[in-house]
Amino acid sequence: MTTAKYIFTNVIGTYALDENLNVVEEHLYEDYKEFLKKEEVELEFQKKHNELETLPKDKLQDVLVKFRDPKYFKNFYDKNVGLTKLGIRKSVNEDWMIIQAISSLNEIDRINNIMIKRLREWYGFYFPEFEYRFSNNEKFLEIISEKNKEEIKIEFSISGEDMGGELEDFHVDEMRILAKNILLNFETRRAHEKYLEKIMKDYCPNMLELVGANIAGRLIELGRSLRRLAMLPASTIQLFGAEKALFRHLKTGSLSPKYGVIINHPIVQKAAKADKGKAARKLADKISLSARLDFFKGEFKAADYRKALEEEFIK
Amino acid sequence: MTTAKYIFTNVIGTYALDENLNVVEEHLYEDYKEFLKKEEVELEFQKKHNELETLPKDKLQDVLVKFRDPKYFKNFYDKNVGLTKLGIRKSVNEDWMIIQAISSLNEIDRINNIMIKRLREWYGFYFPEFEYRFSNNEKFLEIISEKNKEEIKIEFSISGEDMGGELEDFHVDEMRILAKNILLNFETRRAHEKYLEKIMKDYCPNMLELVGANIAGRLIELGRSLRRLAMLPASTIQLFGAEKALFRHLKTGSLSPKYGVIINHPIVQKAAKADKGKAARKLADKISLSARLDFFKGEFKAADYRKALEEEFIK
Repeated sequence: MTTAKYIFTNVIGTYALDENLNVVEEHLYEDYKEFLKKEEVELEFQKKHNELETLPKDKLQDVLVKFRDPKYFKNFYDKNVGLTKLGIRKSVNEDWMIIQAISSLNEIDRINNIMIKRLREWYGFYFPEFEYRFSNNEKFLEIISEKNKEEIKIEFSISGEDMGGELEDFHVDEMRILAKNILLNFETRRAHEKYLEKIMKDYCPNMLELVGANIAGRLIELGRSLRRLAMLPASTIQLFGAEKALFRHLKTGSLSPKYGVIINHPIVQKAAKADKGKAARKLADKISLSARLDFFKGEFKAADYRKALEEEFIK
Repeated sequence: MTTAKYIFTNVIGTYALDENLNVVEEHLYEDYKEFLKKEEVELEFQKKHNELETLPKDKLQDVLVKFRDPKYFKNFYDKNVGLTKLGIRKSVNEDWMIIQAISSLNEIDRINNIMIKRLREWYGFYFPEFEYRFSNNEKFLEIISEKNKEEIKIEFSISGEDMGGELEDFHVDEMRILAKNILLNFETRRAHEKYLEKIMKDYCPNMLELVGANIAGRLIELGRSLRRLAMLPASTIQLFGAEKALFRHLKTGSLSPKYGVIINHPIVQKAAKADKGKAARKLADKISLSARLDFFKGEFKAADYRKALEEEFIK
């Protein structure tokens, strides 16, 4: 047996080669999973054969030529497909789930607007006085899907004749079918919110604490991942979601926007008018810090951040 | 007692007046409902007092002056409000219900597209092989909301490893919540279709028979009422829903459209390519006839129309 000098590994196997690049010993991998543990095999080879060198670059060509034989092709193909699938599988992470859920949640908001507008118009033919008076959507849906006109009149002391058409029951039943559908949309929306909170509690607890599931989700969606969000400057985060106004500002010289999606945060909402810009800037700073803490699995500091901001801006 | 000469009626009452316009006898209406039966009161007055004349126009001014007194105002106001409410109530008819239901149905179609696209993208992270392979949306939703990955693999003989991420159950559960929501949308849509059929069976049976609830609903929506649809020329009906293409044609001289919403009708769909325009024109003719039959409560002829068209264009 000649002395092995080089060590070489590809998806098919790990090889100990002599000076002339002939195989002294080989370990063939059964599947890509075994290949993933190649370090162990290589370590074993190193122990068996003393002082194996990694194949120098100028000899690589000569070794690869040996694998040109079509008998290796299927083996290469199968292992590579397995590795690719693994890569795809591993790429599915919390970011993607957050982005899907927040997108779905926002779509449901828009959908509910459309459906409620339709139902209110429809129901308005039947009982305009109640439709007009009752602005809380979810409550409105619950009431009309459970109670009939007379019951509603008593409960909300709407006296006298109404202007609604005299409709047979099957018309009102149809509106109720739609109302119940919209109520389920609301439930799905709430489920999404809870789901986002559940993911974020582990994945980005600081972001969750500081801005809540909704804004945190939107920011991760706009940043495309927590990783990228953590790398972005706070000023970008401050304007996330205000791209239209920003480009209008750059193009036409209109006023530059002060905030994007964070406009919905209580700290910006409740800040005095003159302070809103400053509040947005400071909040964005803390969001950026939180994203970094979360991405690098740092401490939980967001509760302190939030408290300080509240003390400064909410009076 | 002086002899009554004139008869005069307003919302407050009916009056028999003498030559000098003094009241000889009056009948005051309790509410607007009694006022609606004013003909009976007037007939009675005519019997009691011989040869009452309708108040001549030149004397009307003098009578109206007597009602200037503010004591009548509340009475006028109440009766007029009652009559207006009645008018509004009476204006609610089948047209409005059809328009609401068909609009809701079309909105749900668009909504389902959005929601399904979202769910498929989401589910694709979990089990891309199945998402990609299975194109029937409703069936897809039913399967994923009931079965887990392993069960699906067995049922649809998807062998080997999949590329989906290794997700904890609560992620998949969340997708199922969304799937069930979309399934309910489908049910609501079907309910709307049945509801439209129920209305149309009485209201426009010919339209229903000739083009089905969906197209009939869209045509009534575009025509704004069955009445107006019945008055429109067939050529307008033929192009309903193709307004954009029509105006482009008028503006730029592009090809004129041959059909609007009726493009979805089997007679246009299945006609030979060269015959499609002709099929659309003849179908629109029959739709126009059907709308008139339905509006004027004529016979049921649409089954014959449909049969003749099918024989001519579907081979």
